[in-house]
Amino acid sequence: MKLRKIAERLGCELVGDGEIEISGVAGIEEAGADRLTFVANPKYAALAKTTSAGAILVEPDFPALERTSTLRIKNPYLAFARAIELFYNAPHHKPGIHPTAVVPNSTTIGEGAHVGAYVVIGDDVAIGRDAVLLPHVVIYDGARIGDRFFAHAHAVVREHCVLGDDVVLQNGAVIGADGFGFAKDGKNWRKIVQAGRAVLGNDVEVQANACVDRASVGETVVKDGAKVDNLVQVGHGSTVGERTLLCAQVGLAGSTVIGKDVILAGQVGVAGHLTVGDGAIATAQTGIPNDVAAGSVVSGYPAVENKQWLRQVVVVNKLPEIVKELRTAIKELRNEE
Amino acid sequence: MKLRKIAERLGCELVGDGEIEISGVAGIEEAGADRLTFVANPKYAALAKTTSAGAILVEPDFPALERTSTLRIKNPYLAFARAIELFYNAPHHKPGIHPTAVVPNSTTIGEGAHVGAYVVIGDDVAIGRDAVLLPHVVIYDGARIGDRFFAHAHAVVREHCVLGDDVVLQNGAVIGADGFGFAKDGKNWRKIVQAGRAVLGNDVEVQANACVDRASVGETVVKDGAKVDNLVQVGHGSTVGERTLLCAQVGLAGSTVIGKDVILAGQVGVAGHLTVGDGAIATAQTGIPNDVAAGSVVSGYPAVENKQWLRQVVVVNKLPEIVKELRTAIKELRNEE
Amino acid sequence: MKLRKIAERLGCELVGDGEIEISGVAGIEEAGADRLTFVANPKYAALAKTTSAGAILVEPDFPALERTSTLRIKNPYLAFARAIELFYNAPHHKPGIHPTAVVPNSTTIGEGAHVGAYVVIGDDVAIGRDAVLLPHVVIYDGARIGDRFFAHAHAVVREHCVLGDDVVLQNGAVIGADGFGFAKDGKNWRKIVQAGRAVLGNDVEVQANACVDRASVGETVVKDGAKVDNLVQVGHGSTVGERTLLCAQVGLAGSTVIGKDVILAGQVGVAGHLTVGDGAIATAQTGIPNDVAAGSVVSGYPAVENKQWLRQVVVVNKLPEIVKELRTAIKELRNEE
Repeated sequence: MKLRKIAERLGCELVGDGEIEISGVAGIEEAGADRLTFVANPKYAALAKTTSAGAILVEPDFPALERTSTLRIKNPYLAFARAIELFYNAPHHKPGIHPTAVVPNSTTIGEGAHVGAYVVIGDDVAIGRDAVLLPHVVIYDGARIGDRFFAHAHAVVREHCVLGDDVVLQNGAVIGADGFGFAKDGKNWRKIVQAGRAVLGNDVEVQANACVDRASVGETVVKDGAKVDNLVQVGHGSTVGERTLLCAQVGLAGSTVIGKDVILAGQVGVAGHLTVGDGAIATAQTGIPNDVAAGSVVSGYPAVENKQWLRQVVVVNKLPEIVKELRTAIKELRNEE
Repeated sequence: MKLRKIAERLGCELVGDGEIEISGVAGIEEAGADRLTFVANPKYAALAKTTSAGAILVEPDFPALERTSTLRIKNPYLAFARAIELFYNAPHHKPGIHPTAVVPNSTTIGEGAHVGAYVVIGDDVAIGRDAVLLPHVVIYDGARIGDRFFAHAHAVVREHCVLGDDVVLQNGAVIGADGFGFAKDGKNWRKIVQAGRAVLGNDVEVQANACVDRASVGETVVKDGAKVDNLVQVGHGSTVGERTLLCAQVGLAGSTVIGKDVILAGQVGVAGHLTVGDGAIATAQTGIPNDVAAGSVVSGYPAVENKQWLRQVVVVNKLPEIVKELRTAIKELRNEE
Repeated sequence: MKLRKIAERLGCELVGDGEIEISGVAGIEEAGADRLTFVANPKYAALAKTTSAGAILVEPDFPALERTSTLRIKNPYLAFARAIELFYNAPHHKPGIHPTAVVPNSTTIGEGAHVGAYVVIGDDVAIGRDAVLLPHVVIYDGARIGDRFFAHAHAVVREHCVLGDDVVLQNGAVIGADGFGFAKDGKNWRKIVQAGRAVLGNDVEVQANACVDRASVGETVVKDGAKVDNLVQVGHGSTVGERTLLCAQVGLAGSTVIGKDVILAGQVGVAGHLTVGDGAIATAQTGIPNDVAAGSVVSGYPAVENKQWLRQVVVVNKLPEIVKELRTAIKELRNEE
């Protein structure tokens, strides 16, 4: 595809040679002369001068490049995402129900569904239009699922869970397994029946081997547009707000409320029965034992405001030397008396 | 169900109107007039005055409430767990072996078993009475499993593992996968055959996508009544004591011995070849590199006694200011000389 | 097997009675008189005097034992690994394709393959000789897999991924699920098509429920001889070097480069877009936000050089007392003026 045509499709300003033939996209370090790449992270800006790429997506005020054509647009990362789609040959799943799929009469599936080999669907399930269920997906009784559902091999939706439209489950994702609820009964633990359900909004994606537990009573909720990365644990009775990102291996204990537009980076842990406000960010591995204010950025274990944490880290990293310095000074003062 | 009848069933003292009709249970913030709720966590005690619930399970000495009936009992949380069961309509799995299940003649399954679609059982497996194996469960050769086994879709029990009675596996749980054992052989890693097995006692539950590895030699053991939450790693050759709780994303390295009645909160990590004593508690994200004494409460990375950790955290959180204060004081003392 | 014969097979010097009959291997605390055990970890050296084992694998200069025969060799741990194999009765998977396996004509599988029940293989897949695919394994379209592939039940290889020879996938391992890539589009997240793939080299093992994501563009790479433990997350576009060990629950964010012969212990987290040099070691739970130099040993959150961290920990653990001591000293100096 000519670079000029790509610029048109993406709505970019073209600076350089529009006649270059581009045959794909690539990272800035791997890109060859027929590839389009991008610079969004300032860390990679210097590479723009040395890349072999045929063209680069950059912000409008990016410095001019001598050797390489640029496509200029306000959000080059988003434009790159769209450029990938221009060249992507998506797997095709043609409508039809594989003869080995178990689909009882009490279940309804909308038009256009692809149901793969060995899929098992329970009783009284409703699934909307244009669903793709790849091999070995299991949907338990009574689940309610919207349109354009895409479930990769080995994904599971448990009984009576509710999923909106455009939900994507990657491989091994488990929606609605029992929460970890046990009450002390004498010296033993009695299982608390997990009688509630898990509810995912529209446009929610849950990635590989992640778990969103059902509630004991009521609901565990993941709201519209939220994204849940691999191996994340969403504990029973928790709520995850609109467009919130839970990065890989994040863990939410039970009954915790995460606001909208929150970002919890990898391996963050959040204790139960607390609230993380809208737009808050927690950096990787943060341990959150208390409520977090909306809009704040937190770090550390236990979590404090990120700027405070950074200052603490500087001091802690020199602490043995600082203590020695202070003790020496005091000793000298004593001797001088 | 009349509140009076619920009080009788649960063995509670009824204070208020026993004629109220209760149709279910709910959390204190969501409960409507026909719902029973509970207060066990003091954090929620104030909500008892404002809840719309029809009735509340509380401790015997809970203050009287003007507007709401109470059911009084020593352990309201346990009573609530039992109340959920009163209203819960459990999924029913009728006995029978699905025609697609692979069950060789060399395998024995007790009476009353429900074996779902596409279950695969290996040779020489023995499973007790009243088992429920949901679709896609795989049991490898030679496994020995007790009565009332309940395995959710996609759970796996590997070769020669031994499970007691009343074991529950949630979706994607893996019992007895190979431990992470490699010996340096020149510059490469040689796999150490994982020739041992994993052994779960009675009344053990392993939740979604959690892993209990088999031992290299000998056994990995999870004892009676222990509960293992989602995405937990129990490393090869480890022992988990009776009634111990491993919360979500806990990781135990190899050959570690966790005592009985221990609670490891979410994301706790325990190094290999050490002992955590009976009744110990580790708060969330604690990193345990050394033995932990029975009955102690530990926190921090690396773990120290919880009270010590709390005092450290207070100081570390003010550390930049404290260091400044001390340096300033020393400077003033010097100038005053 | 006579101890003398075992010594010959393993290439050890025999000290003691070669006529003892050994019928298996065991850990040093469990071993009975007919078992061979080993001492590699100095922590267990004292147990060599009290063990009931028939014989012990030790290093050549290990002190002589009065009661127990020893087999002496430079790497007793490796010798023990080989001894396990002498006594191990490996499960046998005879060649053949189960009638329920879905194997399209467009797929090629080399000689000697065992393909279990309900395995589903996509179109245009190529798998080498002597593969073992246990029940419910799913291989998506276009995957390329080398010889002696061993995939446990419920393992998944996604579309167009490439695996070398001698790759082992434990249960529930997912190779090539979509990376966690979303670009802000107004207030919503737009999914970035994950058009790249995941590539595993030769002799790579990925253990239970671990995830190696596919790249958005280009490749996620795990090189020859690397080993990935349970519940590990390898983020999209990352590279894991030759013979590197990622222990349980390690998480790598995207586009991170881990060198060769690296060891990341359990629950270590590594941020995106950075480099961990060859031979580096990170102790358990370390949080790595910046590049790590080759050969270094790091610890802490955020990571610092291990020796520095150990010194910091000593001071932090006494910090309340140290601050009190310093404040008291300053107060005394002030009063003395």
